[in-house]
Amino acid sequence: MLLHLSTWQEVEAYLQQSRGIIFPIGSTEQHGPTGLIGTDAICAEAIARGVGEATQAIVGPTINVGMALHHTAFPGSISLRPSTMILVLRDYITCLAKAGFTKFYFINGHGGNIATLKAAFSEIYAHLEDIQIPNAQRVQCQVGNWFMCGSVYKLAKELYGDQEGSHATPSEVAVTQFVYPEAIKQAPLSEEVATGHRIYGAADFRQKYPDGRMGSNPALATPEHGKQLYELAVKELSNGYLEFLNAD
Amino acid sequence: MLLHLSTWQEVEAYLQQSRGIIFPIGSTEQHGPTGLIGTDAICAEAIARGVGEATQAIVGPTINVGMALHHTAFPGSISLRPSTMILVLRDYITCLAKAGFTKFYFINGHGGNIATLKAAFSEIYAHLEDIQIPNAQRVQCQVGNWFMCGSVYKLAKELYGDQEGSHATPSEVAVTQFVYPEAIKQAPLSEEVATGHRIYGAADFRQKYPDGRMGSNPALATPEHGKQLYELAVKELSNGYLEFLNAD
Amino acid sequence: MLLHLSTWQEVEAYLQQSRGIIFPIGSTEQHGPTGLIGTDAICAEAIARGVGEATQAIVGPTINVGMALHHTAFPGSISLRPSTMILVLRDYITCLAKAGFTKFYFINGHGGNIATLKAAFSEIYAHLEDIQIPNAQRVQCQVGNWFMCGSVYKLAKELYGDQEGSHATPSEVAVTQFVYPEAIKQAPLSEEVATGHRIYGAADFRQKYPDGRMGSNPALATPEHGKQLYELAVKELSNGYLEFLNAD
Amino acid sequence: MLLHLSTWQEVEAYLQQSRGIIFPIGSTEQHGPTGLIGTDAICAEAIARGVGEATQAIVGPTINVGMALHHTAFPGSISLRPSTMILVLRDYITCLAKAGFTKFYFINGHGGNIATLKAAFSEIYAHLEDIQIPNAQRVQCQVGNWFMCGSVYKLAKELYGDQEGSHATPSEVAVTQFVYPEAIKQAPLSEEVATGHRIYGAADFRQKYPDGRMGSNPALATPEHGKQLYELAVKELSNGYLEFLNAD
Amino acid sequence: MLLHLSTWQEVEAYLQQSRGIIFPIGSTEQHGPTGLIGTDAICAEAIARGVGEATQAIVGPTINVGMALHHTAFPGSISLRPSTMILVLRDYITCLAKAGFTKFYFINGHGGNIATLKAAFSEIYAHLEDIQIPNAQRVQCQVGNWFMCGSVYKLAKELYGDQEGSHATPSEVAVTQFVYPEAIKQAPLSEEVATGHRIYGAADFRQKYPDGRMGSNPALATPEHGKQLYELAVKELSNGYLEFLNAD
Amino acid sequence: MLLHLSTWQEVEAYLQQSRGIIFPIGSTEQHGPTGLIGTDAICAEAIARGVGEATQAIVGPTINVGMALHHTAFPGSISLRPSTMILVLRDYITCLAKAGFTKFYFINGHGGNIATLKAAFSEIYAHLEDIQIPNAQRVQCQVGNWFMCGSVYKLAKELYGDQEGSHATPSEVAVTQFVYPEAIKQAPLSEEVATGHRIYGAADFRQKYPDGRMGSNPALATPEHGKQLYELAVKELSNGYLEFLNAD
Ligand code: NI
Ligand code: NI
Ligand code: NI
Ligand code: NI
Ligand code: NI
Ligand code: NI
Repeated sequence: MLLHLSTWQEVEAYLQQSRGIIFPIGSTEQHGPTGLIGTDAICAEAIARGVGEATQAIVGPTINVGMALHHTAFPGSISLRPSTMILVLRDYITCLAKAGFTKFYFINGHGGNIATLKAAFSEIYAHLEDIQIPNAQRVQCQVGNWFMCGSVYKLAKELYGDQEGSHATPSEVAVTQFVYPEAIKQAPLSEEVATGHRIYGAADFRQKYPDGRMGSNPALATPEHGKQLYELAVKELSNGYLEFLNAD
Repeated sequence: MLLHLSTWQEVEAYLQQSRGIIFPIGSTEQHGPTGLIGTDAICAEAIARGVGEATQAIVGPTINVGMALHHTAFPGSISLRPSTMILVLRDYITCLAKAGFTKFYFINGHGGNIATLKAAFSEIYAHLEDIQIPNAQRVQCQVGNWFMCGSVYKLAKELYGDQEGSHATPSEVAVTQFVYPEAIKQAPLSEEVATGHRIYGAADFRQKYPDGRMGSNPALATPEHGKQLYELAVKELSNGYLEFLNAD
Repeated sequence: MLLHLSTWQEVEAYLQQSRGIIFPIGSTEQHGPTGLIGTDAICAEAIARGVGEATQAIVGPTINVGMALHHTAFPGSISLRPSTMILVLRDYITCLAKAGFTKFYFINGHGGNIATLKAAFSEIYAHLEDIQIPNAQRVQCQVGNWFMCGSVYKLAKELYGDQEGSHATPSEVAVTQFVYPEAIKQAPLSEEVATGHRIYGAADFRQKYPDGRMGSNPALATPEHGKQLYELAVKELSNGYLEFLNAD
Repeated sequence: MLLHLSTWQEVEAYLQQSRGIIFPIGSTEQHGPTGLIGTDAICAEAIARGVGEATQAIVGPTINVGMALHHTAFPGSISLRPSTMILVLRDYITCLAKAGFTKFYFINGHGGNIATLKAAFSEIYAHLEDIQIPNAQRVQCQVGNWFMCGSVYKLAKELYGDQEGSHATPSEVAVTQFVYPEAIKQAPLSEEVATGHRIYGAADFRQKYPDGRMGSNPALATPEHGKQLYELAVKELSNGYLEFLNAD
Repeated sequence: MLLHLSTWQEVEAYLQQSRGIIFPIGSTEQHGPTGLIGTDAICAEAIARGVGEATQAIVGPTINVGMALHHTAFPGSISLRPSTMILVLRDYITCLAKAGFTKFYFINGHGGNIATLKAAFSEIYAHLEDIQIPNAQRVQCQVGNWFMCGSVYKLAKELYGDQEGSHATPSEVAVTQFVYPEAIKQAPLSEEVATGHRIYGAADFRQKYPDGRMGSNPALATPEHGKQLYELAVKELSNGYLEFLNAD
Repeated sequence: MLLHLSTWQEVEAYLQQSRGIIFPIGSTEQHGPTGLIGTDAICAEAIARGVGEATQAIVGPTINVGMALHHTAFPGSISLRPSTMILVLRDYITCLAKAGFTKFYFINGHGGNIATLKAAFSEIYAHLEDIQIPNAQRVQCQVGNWFMCGSVYKLAKELYGDQEGSHATPSEVAVTQFVYPEAIKQAPLSEEVATGHRIYGAADFRQKYPDGRMGSNPALATPEHGKQLYELAVKELSNGYLEFLNAD
């Protein structure tokens, strides 16, 4: 059930049976010469919708732009500041918590979002306590990173070994190929690829990772891999969501 | 050209020939018993993509959640605070202006966004001047409200007369029916519908507009109307975008 | 009744019979070679005091500095950022709403304030709900733009036709001449005057409107015109205020 | 020379000969049963204008609302939060410093403003350095508290002795009587008046100072006293301003 | 009793008998060629601990970094912006006020903190009222500046006369020598020392006070002086704290 | 070399040979019935000083209060909001980066700080770029969590096995016993201890972890263990710091 394709009366009815909502959260950032700028949002959205179907959960609109400041020296990348992203998440959750939602599950496609998501959750619990909404103490947030699912990680390693890398990975590219086969890109990829540098500011990142990839070989990706990875992620995160929903 | 389905190298190439980008901006808010919560985002996204195709412009990811605080007493509505939305837009435009974009065209599906968009633009021009990015003085932002297009307005009046109303209108519902025919909703609509009350806070709004509609009869909407309205909006806003792009 | 010339006990008594307050809001910005930098504040203040007398309403201190960032490339202009102005208005209204005021009527002299005022109102309604002041749901804000009054607009068109323009207009200059006849300015005005450019940042504005006027010929203004315009505005906004005050 | 009664070209000419500007800053707060809510702004404005005339300095619009949170349990009081007031002052000074002003002299009518003014100055110097305006290092701000002038203090002591008190004082009331003789108030004043309590929050303040006065007997005020106090303040602060203006 | 060396159960027990807490607040800023960068924090911490012992009060962790923007042109200085410091203090006091503390006593070692501390207190009282914690109206904050104690001031004058100066003073240096005799510094001190300049921005400060001292001769300091000054401060501030604690 | 026991001239000299600085960062939060509220700060401070000595690095003042909102239902806990902590770190690093420091190493004693530290680093890199300090691109921040050192973890497992738990652990308690043997606490500890609950808001945390421990048995701690753990942490983090310092 997609929030955007529902009416408020359907949401009202939904709240009679569940207090949970899933938000896909991605990023708008370079993913190397062949990866889509929307990769993280595309993966998160597709998987979140799969999880929504599997668990009868409502799925909110995709948060397309996340925390990707370190990618912004590449054109087309867009990022929220962490402090802005905290406010955005606070506003989302405040609205929905007032309406009765208490379980917020973020299906995340971007490693760079994790720290800010966690910081935001802490800020939000305190905020809800301060504005004294009735169910403030019951509000819970959790992140489910599809690319960190055990099953996904295992398959990615089998398929790609060390060439999985850590950004613009063949596994995330594969999922986007599965979702948008019409947008599969071809571009020359140098055999050597930068790897192992820590992440600091945007200019530094581009200098160290000149084509945007971090140790990955996205040329290995196929739509079929993407389908497999997608299905594993949906299955594992569906379990994750239900466990979260049903926990105290 | 969709930003999310492009690579950073494609964006780099695009910037050689154009400095413009289009952002669909909608809202996540109740639209009466039969209108989709995503109505404003769905319309803006579809029309923006049409405009993007017609004008060869790059289209950024849809801003799904806007300024809809007055709708938040209806479950499922989500809103940014105006002050948050200003920061979000500042972050978007700062990233892209640093990359070389100077013309930001927002195709907007929600009247409630207009004031905050305009406030944000002023804030952003000053911010870019303060951080002294090279092309700060050339950055320009504009809003194109599809529902205010002359041609759209005229057809809506012809089709629906006074029953167009001002929120959860048949014309916007029609566009969503055209875009998502699988999500056409049926629900009883009282013949009488509240109208004419000014908008203040969320609780006040729900009290005055108990089913969420403002003077509208969305039962008149058809997917065919939606198609017509969509096409008029695309045409008129394509002209609007090109004029904006080419102006000094 | 001017708030600044009242005591707190008089305000306490006033609140027994009315919950309304009027705030003049202007700007501190260039108004061409012959227009006063305080034009918008002067007009708003004079008219608001007239309305206060006509309606027995309390009139707060004039908000002298508004949102005029686009004028700040001309010396003497001062502007709040929209985000600052939102906070200022939030602070004003929070104090007064706690004291029992619920109807806030802003008599506005500057078009550039409108978007930020509206954004602020939305932010404030949500803020008051969050801090749970007893009458949060009853707080209502409205803007009355004196220069958009039908009667004012009609007279301005009769007197000045197209030479009214849209900034540093003869009608606003006339009102300041009526209020401060000792400050009528003489300066050469080029016959040609820039017009029709959209407003973006401050440097861009000054480049396009080099003497600060937007399509206007303020040399047509007279104090007598000012008196007429003033009286029309007072009458129309007095009705506007009373309607607002007495509405649900 | 009043900024609000000047044109931008007059300001441009002024900047050729002086970089200084004076801002009256007051407050909108209860001043006991007979003191005007605008007392602090009225005094600051009148004295600042006197100083402006005596020193040929430009005088900006009065900052009517300051930091008076501790008075807000009395109806009619309005206060900025300190954090808001810092932003307001930052916006003012940033605009004017970009235009070439470097010497900002605040003629202050309210003790409660002093701490926030000083905090704001520190914040602003750092801000101007960060945005790298050309003359950032030369910007200087200073507060001149009229009620702390040696000559004023001496006369107040002579006239009122211990009955001067520290809020709603006869000396400030006298100045308002001189400026607005038409607004002299009569109301019963208890002989006993609270005194000596420290200032904490608003509710605490009203409990400890139930009629709003702090140890003062404003019934002693006369317009003639007001005239004398006004003249002393103008003289002393004119010297203060010139010293500030001419210092390195 | 040091908060950091206590358990939460000890704090819970403490709250049965007292609602007061002491915070040492210093600064991290240059103190001339021989003064320690931590001088203000070291003095405040040592004295606060002495006061804590003398009065059985709990002493919170030292706030090491305060408002020292004007010192930041000297390497090693660190400062919070006033607006940041307000938020920090708000967070501290909100946490502790929720736990039941109502009397917050700041033993301060740095003149530059005073304005921001006072601004913060006002902001915090209003914040606590807004979030409606049960004892909001009872929360009280006070600053005790050790260097302004009458007894301290008197001894400093006796010992150093005019060579006390106003920054990097022999008295504060003496206290650090008493606390950290192992960190007594030797460095050439010019006989002439800058004095009498007002404080504006950081670059201006360093230009006017090139070695960082303001009119002081810290070479006069001895650890024995430090011990005397420390004892006087502890005694006087212990009285100050108890008076504050026991007042209404 | 402790920043607080240095002069600005010593810092100036230090910068000739190194651009690195170490900050201990802890927390002020409950650590169960026998753990000190300052545990995280105490451990971080002691270890950071050890690392400073081993590597000749300058060590800044301890950041005593971190992100511990989830502990604030226990009296004595103090926390910054994540958004506040981001500003604090931004202010620290901005000051020091202007002075020439580029390598910021945070020795962290509290897991709850990690997310906000990482979010802050991203925010700060962008901020420094915006204010265009000369060496913005070279600024790098890193966290070294002493309790995550491989050697520390291994010893803790050997000594305590599963009774190490995850909060108020015997290993951190042991380090505080080594540092402050005079503050070793005795209190009854239930044999059963809550474990395995996820962390959400403060009230929820206290309900699930009623005595504050998370799966730990701090009664196993001894000062001798503390010494061993301390030494391992110093050794491993000294290597970590030097590697960071010398990396590109
Ligand atoms: Ni990715
Ligand atoms: Ni709509
Ligand atoms: Ni105007
Ligand atoms: Ni006063
Ligand atoms: Ni000092
Ligand atoms: Ni710990």
